[in-house]
Amino acid sequence: MRIAVDVMGGDKGAQIVTQGALQAARESRAQYLLVGDPAIIKPELAKSGLRNVEIIPAMQVIEMTDQPTVAYKKKPDASVVVGAKLVKEKRADALVTIGNTGAAMAVSLLTWGRIKGIDRPAIATPLPSLKGTVVLLDAGATPDCDPNNLYEFALMGSIYAEKVLGIPKPSIGLLSNGEESSKGNELVKRAHALFMQESDERPFHFFGNVEGSDVYRGAVDVVVCDGFTGNVFLKASEGVAEMVLRLMKEGLSARKLLTPFVLPLKPVFRELRKKLDYAERGGAPLLGLNGICIIGHGRSDAHAVLNACRAAERAVASEIVSTIRDRVCEAPAPPLPPV
Amino acid sequence: MRIAVDVMGGDKGAQIVTQGALQAARESRAQYLLVGDPAIIKPELAKSGLRNVEIIPAMQVIEMTDQPTVAYKKKPDASVVVGAKLVKEKRADALVTIGNTGAAMAVSLLTWGRIKGIDRPAIATPLPSLKGTVVLLDAGATPDCDPNNLYEFALMGSIYAEKVLGIPKPSIGLLSNGEESSKGNELVKRAHALFMQESDERPFHFFGNVEGSDVYRGAVDVVVCDGFTGNVFLKASEGVAEMVLRLMKEGLSARKLLTPFVLPLKPVFRELRKKLDYAERGGAPLLGLNGICIIGHGRSDAHAVLNACRAAERAVASEIVSTIRDRVCEAPAPPLPPV
Repeated sequence: MRIAVDVMGGDKGAQIVTQGALQAARESRAQYLLVGDPAIIKPELAKSGLRNVEIIPAMQVIEMTDQPTVAYKKKPDASVVVGAKLVKEKRADALVTIGNTGAAMAVSLLTWGRIKGIDRPAIATPLPSLKGTVVLLDAGATPDCDPNNLYEFALMGSIYAEKVLGIPKPSIGLLSNGEESSKGNELVKRAHALFMQESDERPFHFFGNVEGSDVYRGAVDVVVCDGFTGNVFLKASEGVAEMVLRLMKEGLSARKLLTPFVLPLKPVFRELRKKLDYAERGGAPLLGLNGICIIGHGRSDAHAVLNACRAAERAVASEIVSTIRDRVCEAPAPPLPPV
Repeated sequence: MRIAVDVMGGDKGAQIVTQGALQAARESRAQYLLVGDPAIIKPELAKSGLRNVEIIPAMQVIEMTDQPTVAYKKKPDASVVVGAKLVKEKRADALVTIGNTGAAMAVSLLTWGRIKGIDRPAIATPLPSLKGTVVLLDAGATPDCDPNNLYEFALMGSIYAEKVLGIPKPSIGLLSNGEESSKGNELVKRAHALFMQESDERPFHFFGNVEGSDVYRGAVDVVVCDGFTGNVFLKASEGVAEMVLRLMKEGLSARKLLTPFVLPLKPVFRELRKKLDYAERGGAPLLGLNGICIIGHGRSDAHAVLNACRAAERAVASEIVSTIRDRVCEAPAPPLPPV
């Protein structure tokens, strides 16, 4: 197994990403291809003494301000482009990239193309819940969707939860503004009707509509929505978690008398922060393309990069791309959406 | 000032809502009209000894399972219908109702009608942030919007933040999946372009696009989005806050040795919970109609009902309806949406 890691993205710099990838390589029997500026990678690699790592030079970087599709054409030597090509040429089995999500999506799509039968790709983001991990898709790849896109996301999310996360018969929820089937915007109402048709042949287990609070209670294994709503959902969640932890910290540190009581509790707070931090949970796979791309959070530290690499190895081992390809062929075409 | 309270809704029952309304009446010089079953209201009122409270009998209730518009016609003696009529007939200045949001919206709309120049109503929900209160609208009244609706929400939200919350020159953010103007789904991109046109004449202060985390950092005073996205945002936020507090509680109580350290911190946790609990923050006004309706959270306790009543008094005192009416007339019509 060969994992290509684009080390040039991320808020924390190429050195940190390199360190994370090297940690992953140390714990793995996979071959790691580190794509980026050799001047940064070489010293880290030398220190590590690892032999299952190769440097693939790539001297350009797609900046956050670059238009993704333009950058793809104008920067053929950008690390993410070089990494995607390694996968295309079967010199790597998966690409891990941190940072510019838009660029990662555009480059992956343009280099690998979509799986036949999948109209639009989706980012599947693992989230914490009271019962374990919930997968939300789409977290931002396709902001505007039609009911068929959501149907395909449900199918891909189901396969991902089963094959990669090991959840048998994953239950799928449709994110809505109420549990009743009558709730939703036009898209969700039409998608609900579509999901309910020909339920015998439906290639996934549909639970029904879910609200945000159901998601965090762990009512379902997979939550499906359009990429705009999913991204808003995710960032609202991050924002609230951050605010709660901050308010708690402020509340506790405002009362100096309490300090001796707070100190022994620190490990509990640390553990809580870790549970909530979704950089911790490793990267999110971009599903629906003829290749595996794991997208890490921009603020990933070395540990988060390590987790993203592990997610890539799991995705390769579970043959997620070929499984989606096979099941899309096998699955009956989704019924015509109701008018 | 006369406030009508529909005491029959809410998860906790009519007695609790009655108690909350009576608490509000006790602290206020306003006249309170309690609409509902006299058999429930009378004993509570007798105990209170208050003289600024009147009972308006209403023997029907719109259940959560009733279709709102159908119920409006079939249950003319439902408490929320009777309450809305009191406002229509100018026997009350505002209606407070807890529970079935759909019914409250439908009944208010059908009884009062929309303000001329406002195409769709919006629920303006106050949220906590690191810098104070942020108003989110629409939180669920209009799930499918066009750019003009969002423009009107921005105007109404601005007026509400200024007149009722006392924020001078409130800044308005457009909820999106990225801060850049190029981000968003089709609706948000078109709304952004509309908001940016003729900026000299724009009747509100537009900050730009905001993400969920910006909202909770308090980057703006008002956040505008369609009612579906707003509702998902709200419920995701509730879900995360609930999960964080639950995980913290579990983490702390799992280690018995820590109990002596946890006890002195309880007031801090209680305060945090209070800050986050948005039932605490009083009800959310339904804006855009020819009348004031404050919608309380279904799980409101007496204290939350009291807060919703206060919100109603503030809305009446600030003449929010006539202010919106005047400013909509004064404001130049929004420019034609770009194609």
